[in-house]
Amino acid sequence: MANPLTPDVMADPVALTRALVDIESVSLHEKEIADCVEEVLRAAPHLSVQRYGNTVMARTDLGRAQRVVLAGHLDTVPLNDNFPATLQGDLIYGCGTSDMKAGVAFALHLAVSVPEPRFDVTYFFYEAEEVDSRYNGLTLVANAHPDWLTADFAVLLEPTYGVVEAGCQGTMRAIVRTTGRRAHSARSWRGINAIHAAGEVLRRLQAYEPRTVSIDGCTYREGLNAVRVRGGVAGNVVPDLCEIEVNYRFAPDRSEAEALAHLRDVFGGFEIEVVDSSSGALPGLSAPPAREFLAAVGEAPVAKLGWTDVARFAALGIPALNFGPGDPNLAHAPDEHVEIGKIRDGAATLHRWLS
Amino acid sequence: MANPLTPDVMADPVALTRALVDIESVSLHEKEIADCVEEVLRAAPHLSVQRYGNTVMARTDLGRAQRVVLAGHLDTVPLNDNFPATLQGDLIYGCGTSDMKAGVAFALHLAVSVPEPRFDVTYFFYEAEEVDSRYNGLTLVANAHPDWLTADFAVLLEPTYGVVEAGCQGTMRAIVRTTGRRAHSARSWRGINAIHAAGEVLRRLQAYEPRTVSIDGCTYREGLNAVRVRGGVAGNVVPDLCEIEVNYRFAPDRSEAEALAHLRDVFGGFEIEVVDSSSGALPGLSAPPAREFLAAVGEAPVAKLGWTDVARFAALGIPALNFGPGDPNLAHAPDEHVEIGKIRDGAATLHRWLS
Repeated sequence: MANPLTPDVMADPVALTRALVDIESVSLHEKEIADCVEEVLRAAPHLSVQRYGNTVMARTDLGRAQRVVLAGHLDTVPLNDNFPATLQGDLIYGCGTSDMKAGVAFALHLAVSVPEPRFDVTYFFYEAEEVDSRYNGLTLVANAHPDWLTADFAVLLEPTYGVVEAGCQGTMRAIVRTTGRRAHSARSWRGINAIHAAGEVLRRLQAYEPRTVSIDGCTYREGLNAVRVRGGVAGNVVPDLCEIEVNYRFAPDRSEAEALAHLRDVFGGFEIEVVDSSSGALPGLSAPPAREFLAAVGEAPVAKLGWTDVARFAALGIPALNFGPGDPNLAHAPDEHVEIGKIRDGAATLHRWLS
Repeated sequence: MANPLTPDVMADPVALTRALVDIESVSLHEKEIADCVEEVLRAAPHLSVQRYGNTVMARTDLGRAQRVVLAGHLDTVPLNDNFPATLQGDLIYGCGTSDMKAGVAFALHLAVSVPEPRFDVTYFFYEAEEVDSRYNGLTLVANAHPDWLTADFAVLLEPTYGVVEAGCQGTMRAIVRTTGRRAHSARSWRGINAIHAAGEVLRRLQAYEPRTVSIDGCTYREGLNAVRVRGGVAGNVVPDLCEIEVNYRFAPDRSEAEALAHLRDVFGGFEIEVVDSSSGALPGLSAPPAREFLAAVGEAPVAKLGWTDVARFAALGIPALNFGPGDPNLAHAPDEHVEIGKIRDGAATLHRWLS
């Protein structure tokens, strides 16, 4: 098949968005799109290109004092009657338009059209962001080729609707357990009801006052929620176990260890087991390329509340933020779409910053 | 196959218990045992015998002023490496020994060996007590031949370890629901957490003080317990629904309607849906045959706390109680057994009462 990413398409971020959406790339099926992306990058003489799995990396090596990363994932969630792309007025509809092929189009367009950026740039087009993190292209590259990720600053092109969303909150899931003693429910006084005991856990959750934390002018709003509860043996048995799964979203001034210590404090007296944990990322707005990026955008940054791959960069010591044309509220929705105006504005902003 | 219920075996409740245990009769597979029982009953000239499915009914028609029922189910729970019966000292081990072939042996022995009881007697040997009530032989007969069940008093030969357990408590299961509004857990203030709201339901359960009710000298001890809880959508979603299944065991002075009214009162402000309900049975110790039965036993009755088929008789207006040689704590256990002494004592008691 001829590569649909022709020179004309590459020259226009809007046409490029649409062409990328029309290459189906549900997670773990990114070979075709990675092939197309690799081919157009290899055709640019100012870039050196590497590939690992279905992750493609291209970089300038101009000897600049600072190096920045522009990164976008190539995969999408499963199609949902929203393939291929359709144009309706000034909106492009389709799976992956907002999350995040419009952002990928920014990076791919800049990679081939800005041969002498003011910082050295490493472009990452990576696989498998929407699935279990063991498949994530950034994770795989960080393990296999950590030197590819050397940089002073990173921009992740996740949907932010054209504003800068800085850092991200951490997330921890834990099971809080209550125990009891089984008995026939016709003789319930012989047992101890573990579900009744869970009432105290829920009472603490309902009374909980989450923190609001301001860092570098960004306001992080925490949350602590029961996300699942399960307990019970049979309809005639006093249950001896109840499990409440809680999700703690914590501001990036707290480490994972501090987040766990806080949960142990909140649920003192109960057994806790952490089942999933990811650190947050500080907004990292003081690095010189970050300051210049904010100047190019011209609007104050806000806090990223969800967890994104900026935390992977933060874990490598690289300040990172989110900036993309898509609307985060449309990610994964069947009516996912992106505004053409947001694509043009965002691409112009990035051009200003890099040129 | 020759009928193992020979005259010698029929003459001895202990030998008869063992012979009945050795006819495999897991629920819904009672044909063979019902055939054997029917054959020996038809051989007794003082009995008229009917059969419906695998339920066998035999009755005297002597024109007595009062009619009593002796009833026992022929089925057992599934075998559990405890078939056929084994004799160990003065214990008979095996599936169904305690629940309730030792009780069935009482009734079958009396049916053929007491041709002129002081009350007219209806003997019921019925199928499918251990499974869903739509298969229960008593239910089927009550629908098809309600006249077979006419009586003034009934004794159910369920395991009570040789004491009289009077009436039974009712049982009601209901779902108590809390609702909320879904939101991403990273922006939890946009949602309303239904699991947190369930804390109040559990608080009421933990604070609940069950009644103790004395009726005819029997003490019924109620209980209200959460037996299951479930809620949650995904690890990153504020849940919009939580369901707490409660089981209310209520003394037989309350009807099902009164039990539900009580639950509505306890869980005021929450949605309740009844999923299962069975009325209790008053002890019914004032009927003349009941008083004579208690005199023959010579010990004070106690309350039956679990639910048994006495409630089916109570629903037909027939006072009923439980009396059997088995140990209720051994029912359904792999080491199920019955004491030979309890069989002999109980059979003697019933002989005294009927002769």
